[in-house]
Amino acid sequence: MGDMTYLWDDPAAFADDALAGFCELHADVVRQVPGGAVRRARPQRPKVAVLPGGGSGHYPAFYGIIGPGLADGAVSGNLFTSPSAQDAYSVAKAAHSGAGVVFGYGNYAGDVMNFGLATDRLRAEGIAVDNVVVTDDIASAPESEAQRRRGIAGDFAVFKIMGAAAEEGMDLAGVVRVGRKANERTRTIGTAFAGCTFPGAPEPLFSVPDAQMGLGLGIHGEPGLRDVPLPSAGELAADFVSRVLAEKPADAGERVAVLLNGLGAVKQEELLVLWRPVAALLRESGHVPVLPEVGEFVTSLDMAGVSLTVTWLDDELERLWTAPAWTPAFRRGRTADEPQAVRPEAGEPRADEPVVEYSPASDESRRLAEHVLVALRQVASALGGAESELGAIDAVAGDGDHGRGMVRGIGAALVAAEEAQRAGAGAGDCLVAAGDGWAARAGGTSGVLWGAGLRAAGEALGDRGGSAEVAAAAVNALTTRITTLGGAAVGDKTLVDALEPFRAELLSAVAAGAPAAAAWSRAAEAADEAARNTAELVPRKGRARPLAERSIGTPDPGAVSTALIARTIADHLTGELR
Amino acid sequence: MGDMTYLWDDPAAFADDALAGFCELHADVVRQVPGGAVRRARPQRPKVAVLPGGGSGHYPAFYGIIGPGLADGAVSGNLFTSPSAQDAYSVAKAAHSGAGVVFGYGNYAGDVMNFGLATDRLRAEGIAVDNVVVTDDIASAPESEAQRRRGIAGDFAVFKIMGAAAEEGMDLAGVVRVGRKANERTRTIGTAFAGCTFPGAPEPLFSVPDAQMGLGLGIHGEPGLRDVPLPSAGELAADFVSRVLAEKPADAGERVAVLLNGLGAVKQEELLVLWRPVAALLRESGHVPVLPEVGEFVTSLDMAGVSLTVTWLDDELERLWTAPAWTPAFRRGRTADEPQAVRPEAGEPRADEPVVEYSPASDESRRLAEHVLVALRQVASALGGAESELGAIDAVAGDGDHGRGMVRGIGAALVAAEEAQRAGAGAGDCLVAAGDGWAARAGGTSGVLWGAGLRAAGEALGDRGGSAEVAAAAVNALTTRITTLGGAAVGDKTLVDALEPFRAELLSAVAAGAPAAAAWSRAAEAADEAARNTAELVPRKGRARPLAERSIGTPDPGAVSTALIARTIADHLTGELR
Repeated sequence: MGDMTYLWDDPAAFADDALAGFCELHADVVRQVPGGAVRRARPQRPKVAVLPGGGSGHYPAFYGIIGPGLADGAVSGNLFTSPSAQDAYSVAKAAHSGAGVVFGYGNYAGDVMNFGLATDRLRAEGIAVDNVVVTDDIASAPESEAQRRRGIAGDFAVFKIMGAAAEEGMDLAGVVRVGRKANERTRTIGTAFAGCTFPGAPEPLFSVPDAQMGLGLGIHGEPGLRDVPLPSAGELAADFVSRVLAEKPADAGERVAVLLNGLGAVKQEELLVLWRPVAALLRESGHVPVLPEVGEFVTSLDMAGVSLTVTWLDDELERLWTAPAWTPAFRRGRTADEPQAVRPEAGEPRADEPVVEYSPASDESRRLAEHVLVALRQVASALGGAESELGAIDAVAGDGDHGRGMVRGIGAALVAAEEAQRAGAGAGDCLVAAGDGWAARAGGTSGVLWGAGLRAAGEALGDRGGSAEVAAAAVNALTTRITTLGGAAVGDKTLVDALEPFRAELLSAVAAGAPAAAAWSRAAEAADEAARNTAELVPRKGRARPLAERSIGTPDPGAVSTALIARTIADHLTGELR
Repeated sequence: MGDMTYLWDDPAAFADDALAGFCELHADVVRQVPGGAVRRARPQRPKVAVLPGGGSGHYPAFYGIIGPGLADGAVSGNLFTSPSAQDAYSVAKAAHSGAGVVFGYGNYAGDVMNFGLATDRLRAEGIAVDNVVVTDDIASAPESEAQRRRGIAGDFAVFKIMGAAAEEGMDLAGVVRVGRKANERTRTIGTAFAGCTFPGAPEPLFSVPDAQMGLGLGIHGEPGLRDVPLPSAGELAADFVSRVLAEKPADAGERVAVLLNGLGAVKQEELLVLWRPVAALLRESGHVPVLPEVGEFVTSLDMAGVSLTVTWLDDELERLWTAPAWTPAFRRGRTADEPQAVRPEAGEPRADEPVVEYSPASDESRRLAEHVLVALRQVASALGGAESELGAIDAVAGDGDHGRGMVRGIGAALVAAEEAQRAGAGAGDCLVAAGDGWAARAGGTSGVLWGAGLRAAGEALGDRGGSAEVAAAAVNALTTRITTLGGAAVGDKTLVDALEPFRAELLSAVAAGAPAAAAWSRAAEAADEAARNTAELVPRKGRARPLAERSIGTPDPGAVSTALIARTIADHLTGELR
């Protein structure tokens, strides 16, 4: 089930309920009034009231940014619906402290009419009022008709600057002037990956075809430029940056406020991934991002999408953009408690990888190391081939990353072992290095277990050459280390269910005098069968413990990969002897 | 297209790229090190390093909360995968300032092992290290086996308290003690509405059946208690609060830290809607929420879900919970710039609805008012019946709320008109009241236009009684007001396309001497036909302007509702004459 709004009591009252919840949660900062909310703290002297407004469904726009340094109140309509003139009038009356009022809103017909009517009514009562209409969306009209453009995430940059201006004591004309200047120097391009759904609605307001995105699509689903194939983060960054920079104002300098805005269902980690190429491209073009912001500023319910806003700053705008603010959703400026000593970059201790020193290796051990490396490569290849199957098995009751984790781990192990071999290490030290590499790079349960197990195997091998007995001793050490560290027993549905039968069969075969290849083949057979049998078990350890019946019928992915490793090495030994 | 991760360059490097983007964005606060990140500012004197950690995909957990008053660093693994022991060791070495290190993590096998190994290694180097393992998820094991529970959003409360303790200078034993105390007094219950999807994965990690939720489901999709039908916000609040309060510790008081945590795809507005009943139920049970937090604290990529965490505070825990913090994702405590004057609640001016006073009405006008009220009720009923159809038409190129907006508007108009009638108003004043009610309550473009239009009609009607000519004059005034205010012309694909032909036909028929019912019927016919013909038009006004071809073939919803209103009144007049 995808794009949805899940939580409500009465769909028709959703916007009202959210506003009421907000005002209750932040009762120390805001006070609800008919039509919206205002700051609870009355200004110490009259100041211009900066009042952003518009439809609901865009949190933190607009009531989330009420507070010192930003808005004095916010006018809040129903979902994606402009507030009424009465709403705007009511909030203005409550917020007015004697120095006038300025409404800020995006350029939509309903907002323009309703705020316009409220302005007339307030003026008729002798209150000084003006309006700043935001038109930052470059996809909504050509540059030659910029005054017809819609307002989207640029709202935030413009209102932040207006809020700071009012806070520092500018008069109404001044706040309006900097707001309009900020708007004239602000450009936004947005895109949507999937639509949003109203509370209680049976289907999304609009949709975007699979593997496509709606470039330039508006924050209420208004048509954009066109649908294009879903790009990589780097490609999207390049497209966004080039479109915005193509409209750089003639007199603009290099310093820019930047907003990378998530529209709802895009997660912060994704925005952070996108931020790097955006920042790099802005810098390459000679721009300097000043206190850039990455997060949610003007959303569209649960729409999946993102937008990039650039405001070209002059000295005045930079002063206002960087000024402190303290609101429920946006806080800038520091507390008094912050330690001021900045960590020196140069000469400080770094926690790098431990430097490994190898004991001199015997010729025998160095020869064995070559075999170990070949076997590791074959295991890497086998795990690579099984990655998606292992992932699918793991996804039944786990998080589906077992295949990826094992591939990542064996890859790191191989790199470390090759490095050790180049440095003259023998087989034992190569396995120790492989184990440390696996543990350091792969993480997770399988990473720590295989890492420690390979290290134990390498320590058991030491500087000796190859023999069936030596290999069995190494497997014995690996198994003991893994079972001790992991704390799992046979029957817990873990890799131990494959590993213990493997060890038992190998030790028994070698003790009975079987050659290495034959002993490993028999042991690998036992591991295979045991791994298959884990399908009948219920996990008793780890994350899926409480009610993990859903894994019944599926073997444990750790046991399956263990059996695969055993089989691959057995085949390697058999092949060597042919 | 639902639950997805949309933005990445290399799916396998997603977690690394997000961490790097974070460290670049917040380079003033954090510094990337192998395995995670640490504060950039070095403490002025040695302090305990508080180091939360775990897999990635849970932003702001864990690197988002690095900063003064909270974490000294964070150990960050791959997606939903514990970091390696080497990662933890590396971050600890970089963060250690001489007063020891404490790792904080949720109770998962991989984390326990890897942080355990890192602890051994650091101790072997003579660094004082300890661990606080969080076990707040009441759905993951019974209370009698609380030590086996998983750690979920309670992580944040525990780490916030530990961070404040370290910041105020507590030693290692003290920080560990308060961390464990906080954990023992913290309970969380969570639920999931829909699964999450790894970058590049073809399908979600897990899914929840439609219209169900997975109660108690873990933050990596671990099985929970059971699937239950999707409740309302109020029902969910009641279930969550009762489950958490059932585990109130024996010695606990009434003061509680509260987290209402969104898991990813649930929006802030939804959390705010849920907050009200949660807060009410906590208060009803005698609890006092202390600086409650509603937002995202421990997420699961784009999982749709929510959790409630309660920490029972004693004096020491409350001091630490409420202490200031300044991190990229969480900021508490105030800037110096905040005005301190708090708005007095009593005696302040309120912006209430304007008080309407009616001129004395003639008997004729009062009789006409009765007909007006009946007609308004019939219009309300007709619009109610057409609500979903109007919404569907509007959703083609608009935001789908036209039906809801009209129903809301006519409802408010009716309430206001009835109130005016009870106060003795005539037909003209009833229509004025209806218009003002519609405009004030409905918002949006249709709200302001119909509100102003009805007011104009009422003013034209004045205190007169009913006649075909008077009704035509009222329609004429309404039409002129709406077209002037909206600025749309015939052919722009708006309600004007139905309204203008209606007016023209009505005026012409009345001028030719037709009786009211016949004239309205002919005019309504013209409006109907004109509304249907709007399907051939492309909008030239309003939100859908730039590339609104997608609405071709669908009539304009405003024109359709206008024709419906005309038809309803015509039928009313015809019925009256029968």
